[in-house]
Amino acid sequence: MFKVTFQLEGAGTVDAYAQEDENLLNVAQKSNVAIDAPCSGNGMCGKCKVRLVSGELDSKKTRHITEEEYAEGWRLACCSHITGDVTVEVPDIASAYRSRMKVADLSSRQEVELFENTKKQIEDAGILLKNSMSVLEIQMSEPTLDDTMPDNERFEWAVEEATGLEHVRIPYSVLHKMAHVFRENHFHVQCVVRKTSRDVFVYDILPADKKPVIGGLAVDIGTTTVSAILMNMETGEILAKASSGNGQIRYGADVINRIIESQKPGGGRRLQKAVITETINPLIDEMCRSIQFPREQIYRMAVAGNTTMNHLLMGVDADPIRMEPYIPTFFKTNSLFASDIGIHIHPDAHIIVAPNIGSYVGGDITAGAFVSLIWNRPEMSLFIDLGTNGELVFGNSDFLMSCACSAGPAFEGGDISCGMRATDGAIEACTIDKDTMEPHFSVIGDEGTKPVGICGSGIIDIIAELFTCGIINAKGKFVREGERIRHDKYGMGSYVLAFEKDAGSVKDVEITEVDIDNFIRAKGAIFSAIRTMLKSLDFTVDMIDDVYVAGGIGSGINMRNAVNIGMFPDIPVEKFHYIGNSSLTGAYSMLLSTQAERKVYDVARNMTYLELSTVPSYMDEFVGACFLPHTDSEMFPSVHLK
Amino acid sequence: MFKVTFQLEGAGTVDAYAQEDENLLNVAQKSNVAIDAPCSGNGMCGKCKVRLVSGELDSKKTRHITEEEYAEGWRLACCSHITGDVTVEVPDIASAYRSRMKVADLSSRQEVELFENTKKQIEDAGILLKNSMSVLEIQMSEPTLDDTMPDNERFEWAVEEATGLEHVRIPYSVLHKMAHVFRENHFHVQCVVRKTSRDVFVYDILPADKKPVIGGLAVDIGTTTVSAILMNMETGEILAKASSGNGQIRYGADVINRIIESQKPGGGRRLQKAVITETINPLIDEMCRSIQFPREQIYRMAVAGNTTMNHLLMGVDADPIRMEPYIPTFFKTNSLFASDIGIHIHPDAHIIVAPNIGSYVGGDITAGAFVSLIWNRPEMSLFIDLGTNGELVFGNSDFLMSCACSAGPAFEGGDISCGMRATDGAIEACTIDKDTMEPHFSVIGDEGTKPVGICGSGIIDIIAELFTCGIINAKGKFVREGERIRHDKYGMGSYVLAFEKDAGSVKDVEITEVDIDNFIRAKGAIFSAIRTMLKSLDFTVDMIDDVYVAGGIGSGINMRNAVNIGMFPDIPVEKFHYIGNSSLTGAYSMLLSTQAERKVYDVARNMTYLELSTVPSYMDEFVGACFLPHTDSEMFPSVHLK
Repeated sequence: MFKVTFQLEGAGTVDAYAQEDENLLNVAQKSNVAIDAPCSGNGMCGKCKVRLVSGELDSKKTRHITEEEYAEGWRLACCSHITGDVTVEVPDIASAYRSRMKVADLSSRQEVELFENTKKQIEDAGILLKNSMSVLEIQMSEPTLDDTMPDNERFEWAVEEATGLEHVRIPYSVLHKMAHVFRENHFHVQCVVRKTSRDVFVYDILPADKKPVIGGLAVDIGTTTVSAILMNMETGEILAKASSGNGQIRYGADVINRIIESQKPGGGRRLQKAVITETINPLIDEMCRSIQFPREQIYRMAVAGNTTMNHLLMGVDADPIRMEPYIPTFFKTNSLFASDIGIHIHPDAHIIVAPNIGSYVGGDITAGAFVSLIWNRPEMSLFIDLGTNGELVFGNSDFLMSCACSAGPAFEGGDISCGMRATDGAIEACTIDKDTMEPHFSVIGDEGTKPVGICGSGIIDIIAELFTCGIINAKGKFVREGERIRHDKYGMGSYVLAFEKDAGSVKDVEITEVDIDNFIRAKGAIFSAIRTMLKSLDFTVDMIDDVYVAGGIGSGINMRNAVNIGMFPDIPVEKFHYIGNSSLTGAYSMLLSTQAERKVYDVARNMTYLELSTVPSYMDEFVGACFLPHTDSEMFPSVHLK
Repeated sequence: MFKVTFQLEGAGTVDAYAQEDENLLNVAQKSNVAIDAPCSGNGMCGKCKVRLVSGELDSKKTRHITEEEYAEGWRLACCSHITGDVTVEVPDIASAYRSRMKVADLSSRQEVELFENTKKQIEDAGILLKNSMSVLEIQMSEPTLDDTMPDNERFEWAVEEATGLEHVRIPYSVLHKMAHVFRENHFHVQCVVRKTSRDVFVYDILPADKKPVIGGLAVDIGTTTVSAILMNMETGEILAKASSGNGQIRYGADVINRIIESQKPGGGRRLQKAVITETINPLIDEMCRSIQFPREQIYRMAVAGNTTMNHLLMGVDADPIRMEPYIPTFFKTNSLFASDIGIHIHPDAHIIVAPNIGSYVGGDITAGAFVSLIWNRPEMSLFIDLGTNGELVFGNSDFLMSCACSAGPAFEGGDISCGMRATDGAIEACTIDKDTMEPHFSVIGDEGTKPVGICGSGIIDIIAELFTCGIINAKGKFVREGERIRHDKYGMGSYVLAFEKDAGSVKDVEITEVDIDNFIRAKGAIFSAIRTMLKSLDFTVDMIDDVYVAGGIGSGINMRNAVNIGMFPDIPVEKFHYIGNSSLTGAYSMLLSTQAERKVYDVARNMTYLELSTVPSYMDEFVGACFLPHTDSEMFPSVHLK
């Protein structure tokens, strides 16, 4: 056995013992040392860098470590093996995660507009904007020697009077503070209650002098990114909004790797902790801090996530999802409370979860399909959610069919060397001059913001432009030469969008053939899924009336370019509508409206699921779609080179 | 400031700082050092002994410390004041408490009989012996590629089928383990459920191979003693029984002192911890250990305690109980769960609490009055619960009136120098030869067990015999001389029941004039309460048809002697019935039968409360009753000296 010492940046050291030849990443994970490893240790992502301080490692050289970095001791943990006692320095993943958290600036119209539109649209669809939460003002007479009714009975009676309901449920948390709150406020209080047809549940009692805001928390748990909003349950107003990387990323980029990790000893607990303690709770804290909102005044939470995310959130065994016969533990769940899983809001807050409909079509899709309103229209519509998994729903008010494909994190900037989410510094749109091959791009942020990386919509534009300018061929390989086109010693081509001197980062912002290849596989997965699902219903792409595109790819998505690269079918661009993060707006709707919540369950119940892997032609479709725009160019008559 | 070092027996040291002249017991309590102080530091009980190791204390000499003990450094903490830096040794209260815990031997018929009788009697009274808990055996088909319903939905459907009820509530704890339990047992399980008219709540899923026992926990929380039984909810069988001192004793012997303590910073939490963490949870652990029962399989708990005990159990502010206008926070409570207050049973277990009806008539009395069945008979009956507080209920099937008086702990052996509870070594019955003044007593335990102390029933006998033999006068003072009668240097008389050589302890077992005086005040409180309540209703004692005596005083109570000392009214002894710990059998009944639970609420609703302190004649009655048998001997025509 050899001794391995991990020096954690800003957090002391951890000693571990390892066999000769053991993998350093595995040793770290066994010892609960957090190292960012979105690709699960396949050597692909290059994120698991550690620095050798003393001793030796048997480390493979990879393109992710430059010569200078190697000389400084940087190694990829997943490509390093133990050969003796060794000490390595581990960058602080927690601060990396914190720094990735972003609280939205709600003074920007754009941030709020999405929710206002959602609210308006579902109301227009005939959904009543009313939920079960409300504030009751209760004025009781103060007890005297002649009126000796105890506080609890006095209060129960007053709530019965005020609501006309006979069953009043007063939980321990309220009973516990009742004597104090009543006396401090002369038996005049504001109560936060949930009313159903048969009972009233009292969440809280508060001083009468100020009407409390009933906080609601909607969370979209994406495999890569977690987004949340804090809302006023009575008005639907957005109070705060934030997002951050999903803390589970260090255990693998996709759901399969997360499930595998969850099966290791203590793994389920670790993944639950990563998403709750390290992701959702900090998001709540940040949002509440930013507007000085007490987190105990968040009384209800709605979650939309894919089936695996929902299982891991609840610490429920997710392994059956990936093992034949692919049975999730639950589609729906009732009776889940914040205190059950340690969400830092009011402990009695109900957590409602948008229902899953299959192992690979989860609550993010049922919530999103609800918000797209495709279930409410006679026209044939296609709903596409571009996340780490791509999911599709096709149908109308008569039927709905769904399917899922694994697209990887490319749409959110993952698996792309200069990829990033659609935040400040991201190239979000781009054109390239056919002759000079010079790019012209727009960068998210204030005017003059220098480019740092490329977000999903930017990558679509860049690949489409490189292709239509004839700079890359249908296979995504560079076929022209120029100042911005380079080849490394392995022969891999790349296109530089911004040289280091013009970039906001310390290196060139570029796109490589590996990036393009990753992206082509992602878009190929989406297009072949669309084709396969439509074919199974005897539909063709020209029968699609509308396409609703959702996901974190960014509102800047250029639908023309998405057609040009063969990601979406070649139908008129007017038919495409970008609806933003519909998983989050779906969760928002479920909080805002009890009818909406029920409707999400109806949508889920009425949706059939097509398992693509059981359709023999799917693989052929996929292979055919892994070209620009497609091996069968007749499918894309409107796509022309410049 | 001086430094005070507490050397805790078996638990290290605690350093504290104190002002000159500060009281040592107060210093200890402020520093969270547990010293047994049932009399709240009045110098009466002599339990707060500590040993001076170094330094000096300004300590009053008291009769509780012998000369030898004083020389060894023993002092009463409550009678000691700080004069400089000091180090004292503190006996381990925790081990003292643990050693006082007693798990009953259920092979003894007597222990079980009480509950069997209760069960039979309430059934005879027409109460249905059925509760909402049951075990369901559920056999589901195993999922296949063609039958892909998720576990949760599959289970919900099967439970709906089995029960005919539509609302199935599956809590997080069950959802969490479902995938595992179902697969380990081929989707064949036993479920512990609670059925109401509208829904089913699933507490647990267990392997199908063995039918689980549904554990129920009934607890009587007395001010001095806490008793508990573990039962089979389906059969009513008693599985284990145990009792122990209430860990709150160290903060004061009576409810008023406990409430005062609860108002100090952190006091509410401290008292809650003392009764839950230090008393009830260890009782549960001991019972479960003794019969190898998993404590998570206790799914329901019933509590009967006085109003203050109920409030302190829940950490609810009890101060309004003792402050005008004397308003408890609650009579009833719904929606209380084991996890709310940290009881170590199934976290979702409901805790049902026998309702209080006033500040000084609590759930112990409503549960006890239910069990006495006086509400079910046309005859006029009197129910008397002899605890630290004495509570009375008088009435029949038409009306019920209750009142309470403060009797102190004398009936349970407290405030009596050789007092003890009715366990091994206690003198439980006694006669005295008029001429020789020699005692003849029986001791609890195996044959030959030597006497250690005296329990409540023994004290009644001894005082009655001393009085009828003319050894003490009507004021309780010794008026005869003899070998067994002694006077100490302060002139205080005592009667030795067993000299050290014949005793099981290291000192004489005796009864002193102080003990007799304490007991006379206790019995005087009871008798004057009976008289005052009857008078308020225009009843006289001869109109009482039956008297039901409950409490920990012991089944050996000699009713004739209780009349002889003027504790109970002078009516024929056949009318008296000892019914044991009716608070505990009441809680047991509430678990066993839903009808019984409802009936306890009815009994509480129909019971009026007489506040004795508002009756002007009560104090005169009390003064008159503080004699043997009474100042007005015509009230006790059947009492004669031997």
